[in-house]
Amino acid sequence: MKTQQILLARRPQGAPVPEDFRFVETELPEPEYGEVIVAHRFLSLDPYQRGRMDDAKSYSAPVALGAVMECQAVGQVAASRDGRFQEGDWVLGGFGWQSHSVRPAHALIPIDPTEASPSTALGVLGMPGLTAWVGLEDIGQPKAGEMLVVSAASGAVGQVVGQLGRIRGAKVVGIAGGAAKCAYVKDTLGFDAAIDHRGDLDAQLDAACPGGIDVYWENVGGAVQAAVFPRLNEFGRMVMCGVIAQYNTASGLAAHGAPPGPNLGPVVRKRLRIQGFIVSDNGWKRYGQFRAEMLDHIKAGRMQYREDVAMGLANAPAAFIGMLEGRNFGKQVVALD
Amino acid sequence: MKTQQILLARRPQGAPVPEDFRFVETELPEPEYGEVIVAHRFLSLDPYQRGRMDDAKSYSAPVALGAVMECQAVGQVAASRDGRFQEGDWVLGGFGWQSHSVRPAHALIPIDPTEASPSTALGVLGMPGLTAWVGLEDIGQPKAGEMLVVSAASGAVGQVVGQLGRIRGAKVVGIAGGAAKCAYVKDTLGFDAAIDHRGDLDAQLDAACPGGIDVYWENVGGAVQAAVFPRLNEFGRMVMCGVIAQYNTASGLAAHGAPPGPNLGPVVRKRLRIQGFIVSDNGWKRYGQFRAEMLDHIKAGRMQYREDVAMGLANAPAAFIGMLEGRNFGKQVVALD
Repeated sequence: MKTQQILLARRPQGAPVPEDFRFVETELPEPEYGEVIVAHRFLSLDPYQRGRMDDAKSYSAPVALGAVMECQAVGQVAASRDGRFQEGDWVLGGFGWQSHSVRPAHALIPIDPTEASPSTALGVLGMPGLTAWVGLEDIGQPKAGEMLVVSAASGAVGQVVGQLGRIRGAKVVGIAGGAAKCAYVKDTLGFDAAIDHRGDLDAQLDAACPGGIDVYWENVGGAVQAAVFPRLNEFGRMVMCGVIAQYNTASGLAAHGAPPGPNLGPVVRKRLRIQGFIVSDNGWKRYGQFRAEMLDHIKAGRMQYREDVAMGLANAPAAFIGMLEGRNFGKQVVALD
Repeated sequence: MKTQQILLARRPQGAPVPEDFRFVETELPEPEYGEVIVAHRFLSLDPYQRGRMDDAKSYSAPVALGAVMECQAVGQVAASRDGRFQEGDWVLGGFGWQSHSVRPAHALIPIDPTEASPSTALGVLGMPGLTAWVGLEDIGQPKAGEMLVVSAASGAVGQVVGQLGRIRGAKVVGIAGGAAKCAYVKDTLGFDAAIDHRGDLDAQLDAACPGGIDVYWENVGGAVQAAVFPRLNEFGRMVMCGVIAQYNTASGLAAHGAPPGPNLGPVVRKRLRIQGFIVSDNGWKRYGQFRAEMLDHIKAGRMQYREDVAMGLANAPAAFIGMLEGRNFGKQVVALD
């Protein structure tokens, strides 16, 4: 049995290009006792994977040159040598950008496909959804009547952030790129307003947030951050989830050489809190509570979500490159088979 | 009975100059029933008073043009029309830059001069000390073995921050200006190392903090902040207490027009927390606990402090201007009488 794989061929210089990836087909090893073969159905493409392509110190080791690109994925058991799994069972794991893999059964997380579509385990019910929930619980803490602004608002994390904020009674403004995403944010997700970051950010923020901003969910950095920061109210919170606009600059994640950020003087006077977090630190411990809440919201029609599905493993690099440029519309996944 | 006063004559353009202040002598009103006359003995000069001189939105109203400059002060009751106070009693209050004032008795805080020198109610046992204690309790939270770096380390707040950090078992490095302050920080206050910000900051930080920095206490902003920020470790905390290096630029406290700050990309990856606070928000509620702890430390010889005493009300403006330039050495007060 063979697996098709996307390897990291070389480390990107700035924005990744197709030549940074290599498509190969290799023989799968025979599963040992206690192992299963998983046929992957959906791969998750997420901005953090850009960081894994650099050989830089970070919270997690880089992907080695020539190794399979990392990602979470859902799949179905194709053959089992473990009593816990049968052919056809849906499972979640860190399977990587490939079509099949052999895994120890203890490393698989079972998924119930009757409860929600399996791909949601990569999005609204998975890491991006949990990221939104943890960051709001621990840092953002929007209160009823407060103003919450979310960047990358139609993306995997942003759409959940805004809807959770609405459920908690906050006013929510989403920032997205282009008319279609803005319409989705306002009309489908039910945000109070949507702002197109390709337009005049200052004028749109003035109109949408006349009383200032209490919580800013940062997914992007750059010009959006520069426009939002001066509008933070006293005791404002800035949830630092990502700075995707900077991931493709060689120095985007470094402190030296990166473009400057806001002067921090107002942090004192306004008693601001700017805090970063990584969901894998302690988020998964609370997955049960998160999942129960989210399933309630979904069943009650309070939580919409949208996926952007690329077809076929060979299209994963292009989908990933596009996502880093904001060309995805919703949670980016790759459907296999 | 007369009082001598320093008024705000005009709003400074950048750094305050003597002409921004006016010295006057005026008649005190007769105290009403329930009021006392206070003869001020020590005025407290603090960097936050620079902000009060600007007509800018802040957490507290500006001093009006022609009004007495604001400050806390300690004094002695010179005449009392209230049963709670007798002539000679030591009291604390927001008396302003003046020699005498008439105050309602209920607004006075009694001071016990046998417990500690009355001027300490303006420093180590007063607002600056409480600031240090609250910021470490709520934001900095240095743990044993962690590296705590303090800017303006020989100042009113910095000296207490560093000593409290040492008491909690942290390694403490102080940043100060010049050899005398650095010697005081290391030898008298017992910090692990002192760094002269007039020298090569990067080289000195490399030498003093080879394992990076876990907590940075920010009193100054500017070049010191720029050198410290990239050295923050994962889960580092930046306690934003003040940015005195920026107070004299017209735009220093504003978000627009101020010099840029650090790129915030590393805040995500390192899970940093950057948080501002103002001690008057909720610090005084915990004054009792703070004072008890600090008196213990002082009696046990664990807490040293130094005051820089300017003589006479007429010298208050020069002392204040000098403090903003870092020319004070220890907590700046003005002795009257």
